[in-house]
Amino acid sequence: MKFNIALLAGDGIGPEVIDQAVKVSDAVAKKFGHEITWKPALTGAAAIDAVGEPYPDSTHEVCKNADAVLFGAIGHPKYDNDPSAPVRPEQGLLKMRKALGLFANVRPTFTFPSLLDKSPLKRERIEGTDLVFLRELTGGIYFGEKGRKDNGDTAFDNCVYTRAEVQRLAKKGFELAMTRSKKLCCVDKANVLETSRLWRETVQAMEKDYPEVEVSYEFVDAVAMRLVQWPNSYDVLITENLFGDILTDEASVISGSMGLMPSASMGAEVSLFEPIHGSYPQATGLNIANPMATVLSAAMMFENFGLMEEGKAMRDAVNKALEAGVVTEDLANGGKAYGTKEVGDWLAANI
Amino acid sequence: MKFNIALLAGDGIGPEVIDQAVKVSDAVAKKFGHEITWKPALTGAAAIDAVGEPYPDSTHEVCKNADAVLFGAIGHPKYDNDPSAPVRPEQGLLKMRKALGLFANVRPTFTFPSLLDKSPLKRERIEGTDLVFLRELTGGIYFGEKGRKDNGDTAFDNCVYTRAEVQRLAKKGFELAMTRSKKLCCVDKANVLETSRLWRETVQAMEKDYPEVEVSYEFVDAVAMRLVQWPNSYDVLITENLFGDILTDEASVISGSMGLMPSASMGAEVSLFEPIHGSYPQATGLNIANPMATVLSAAMMFENFGLMEEGKAMRDAVNKALEAGVVTEDLANGGKAYGTKEVGDWLAANI
Ligand SMILES: CC(C)[C@H](C(=O)O)[C@@H](O)C(=O)O
Ligand SMILES: CC(C)[C@H](C(=O)O)[C@@H](O)C(=O)O
Repeated sequence: MKFNIALLAGDGIGPEVIDQAVKVSDAVAKKFGHEITWKPALTGAAAIDAVGEPYPDSTHEVCKNADAVLFGAIGHPKYDNDPSAPVRPEQGLLKMRKALGLFANVRPTFTFPSLLDKSPLKRERIEGTDLVFLRELTGGIYFGEKGRKDNGDTAFDNCVYTRAEVQRLAKKGFELAMTRSKKLCCVDKANVLETSRLWRETVQAMEKDYPEVEVSYEFVDAVAMRLVQWPNSYDVLITENLFGDILTDEASVISGSMGLMPSASMGAEVSLFEPIHGSYPQATGLNIANPMATVLSAAMMFENFGLMEEGKAMRDAVNKALEAGVVTEDLANGGKAYGTKEVGDWLAANI
Repeated sequence: MKFNIALLAGDGIGPEVIDQAVKVSDAVAKKFGHEITWKPALTGAAAIDAVGEPYPDSTHEVCKNADAVLFGAIGHPKYDNDPSAPVRPEQGLLKMRKALGLFANVRPTFTFPSLLDKSPLKRERIEGTDLVFLRELTGGIYFGEKGRKDNGDTAFDNCVYTRAEVQRLAKKGFELAMTRSKKLCCVDKANVLETSRLWRETVQAMEKDYPEVEVSYEFVDAVAMRLVQWPNSYDVLITENLFGDILTDEASVISGSMGLMPSASMGAEVSLFEPIHGSYPQATGLNIANPMATVLSAAMMFENFGLMEEGKAMRDAVNKALEAGVVTEDLANGGKAYGTKEVGDWLAANI
């Protein structure tokens, strides 16, 4: 097969980890007889510096016409101090999600046996955890009307959801549950919010189309607790944008493998794949960043094309590297630390 | 001193744990020469069953005219299945908060050395944790306009905050920080929400009035992570209603001492004190519920009257009971378990 992949390296360590994912993807393509054309484009602080905005139209054109987007990380400390500044890397992110229609953010949290000791949780709490959040990404309070009244003394943010938005996300959740253990948890705050009641009634009405899936409904505050207490009691969770923002970040730190976690943001036309970690500005250019989460994000991309073996080849390479101790300093545990590039080379050679 | 205390026992184990707190409070009053008049009133499912609503006017009258409210727990499984039912215990809770103006929910999370092993977190992560959330409790998306449009296919919840609401809560936060380690963390989502930007600018403007307090600003998703990673890096945290709902529950499970955590909801006129645990319906009437969180809530009540020694006497009694192993089955660790009433008797005798 032939693919065009938009390549949004972004800021900080983004370009370095993206380079490795490209290298490993190319090795996979070679082995399985595919042809990838990479289309680099600007985003984040890098784009603000170059053309004055974080998600320029030219970048949107590249993404729209690509078969998928591979994304590094964005964010730079010089934009961190004033959240009300008119131009910020995050606004590019939100604009991109909306413009590309990336409505479903897929965030797995799983464990690597060799990394369990890195978890802040006790081993018996975290062992066997393998859950996936589907976070709605283009609606809710992020995109509702917001503003000020009373000379600026009153602020408001409106949270809005339509039944169709909920159905679209929930459908992905049911389908994903069918490929896994057939357990789906709908996370809401239906005891307080009208939008949550719409979520709940919509999901309830869909249950009959997926008779094999066992659906549970839990309040967001209860999930925030149980994620720490018994993370391995969850499988697929679906939730709205803001709850998803908070809970997926919470979930990411429980496994001890945060630096390895990939993610996908799925749209109707194009989908985007990125590591969950940030741009880690202090490490920029030092060849110390861990490229594995980005490589695993590229694996998700192949799998999303239906190329399961290709994805598995990348996952296997990562597992093999972890076992062989071919890791960057964050995982070296006082042992030998490899460079970003060296880990990428090793993974590519082991495809 | 003479006090009138409204006594809202509520549902499930509420009445049992409240009985013990009354007993221990009376012992303290006797020792220190105070006189407490307890004014019982209906709330929760118990009130729905009796008079058709969860926070009847008669109960409001009792609370309004009391010096403080001591609250057990509410919630009953028969109201749990349908979050859109017109009459539910939670609505009583929200109505009560609003009617009594309980704008600041104070939720400490601290550790008891003897309970550290109960934490899902590793000992080195949790040791020394002693933080307090101040959650805004009468504003935000809980109380904004909510409803449906488009024949029910669109739902909305409006989140609204005024500068005065933020100032009122933040003032309590600064004052509390001054009595502790002078560190204050303002939790918001100012990179996305206009209400959060109002929160942040309001708190920033107040910094000059408390030059000794070191203020940090963190995004809610980052706090959800750090609470699990390094809970002991926090001291006082202030936040809006919904973020507070999620984060205080998350914080409550990290310590291993959840069953012991008290809370207060402060208003301009009257304040309310309650354990953070729920009504635990399965345990109703079995004399197995742990009364210590309710006793510690009563201790907060005395301290809020400025009676620090009285509060300390109650805390000391709880610590002594923990050391002596005079505990209910949740803390017995396979050893001898005392009944709810027996623990209450022991605490009263040890004042
Ligand atoms: C940077 C921010 C706008 C963004 C979000 O809140 O969605 C981030 O936290 C994320 O989860 O991708
Ligand atoms: C029962 C519910 C309405 C309530 C809330 O969300 O405030 C509860 O979760 C709490 O934190 O006291």
